[in-house]
Amino acid sequence: MRKLRMSELNRLSANEYKEAEKHPFALVLDNVRSTLNVGSVFRSADAFRCEEIILVGVTPAPTKEMNKTALGATEAVAWLHFDTVEETTQYLRKKNYELWALEQVEGSEKLLEWSISKKSRVAFVLGNEVSGVSNQFLDHCTGCIEIPQYGTKHSLNVSVSSGIVMWEFIKQLKG
Amino acid sequence: MRKLRMSELNRLSANEYKEAEKHPFALVLDNVRSTLNVGSVFRSADAFRCEEIILVGVTPAPTKEMNKTALGATEAVAWLHFDTVEETTQYLRKKNYELWALEQVEGSEKLLEWSISKKSRVAFVLGNEVSGVSNQFLDHCTGCIEIPQYGTKHSLNVSVSSGIVMWEFIKQLKG
Repeated sequence: MRKLRMSELNRLSANEYKEAEKHPFALVLDNVRSTLNVGSVFRSADAFRCEEIILVGVTPAPTKEMNKTALGATEAVAWLHFDTVEETTQYLRKKNYELWALEQVEGSEKLLEWSISKKSRVAFVLGNEVSGVSNQFLDHCTGCIEIPQYGTKHSLNVSVSSGIVMWEFIKQLKG
Repeated sequence: MRKLRMSELNRLSANEYKEAEKHPFALVLDNVRSTLNVGSVFRSADAFRCEEIILVGVTPAPTKEMNKTALGATEAVAWLHFDTVEETTQYLRKKNYELWALEQVEGSEKLLEWSISKKSRVAFVLGNEVSGVSNQFLDHCTGCIEIPQYGTKHSLNVSVSSGIVMWEFIKQLKG
């Protein structure tokens, strides 16, 4: 089995990425603290051609440090920063996103059953590493998605969760 | 939407995890360098109730440093270390795993189409952050799985890739 060379992967340049049609979803990082986690989210968002990433509150904007995990993806994926949940949700509503938080709440929809069929544009909201998505944000969401977990730990890393939910979205979109 | 308390998540203790029936898959880390990446893989492997993780070559065994990202998951998920590909593949064959590498090769199966239906026990092989899965390992694999990517970067982070492939496996298993 011959591994593909970089040139055979047919990736886009950052400029081509900006011009290209995006998949109809955004990511919202609600007070995510870790610069390296945010960088890793950018890298996956680039791979799945995310429309935009909204950084909220203390979530760091791209820096040189972030590039350790973003590997340049911050040059391709559009991003915005808002200080407050209120500003963020106003913006998302204007852009016709349906908001879904990744959170374990009473009555959350398990990702095994969640379906995008009637949701044309989705913003996935991911929360702080310790406290999760803020209650203030949850009030603006259509619902919560829960990734089923069968082990000892109470949650997944935020960059892993976002990767899984983006993959599931893409799979359903192309399916 | 009320967030669930830790006690409502019904997670297992490390001892309960050891006794519990696992999902029929293993992860093989072929010369993965980053301790933090390996820790993050352990955390997700715990969540998806992986049978075992095989650490190969320079892939680090659990340490205190690894716990920054594993958060204790190394206490639950069984793991082994082998120095060579030869020892690793002998072990995996004995345990009847079918080997699938996550790698971009000529003729790789896209994860959009890959199906577990006839593969009862799967070992997913994940490679080094820079060079990917070694050619020596690829020779032992039934095939390669490729996560479709639509952006500028040539690959995903190894902990994100492993999370996506575990999720896809679980979804097909439960579907």
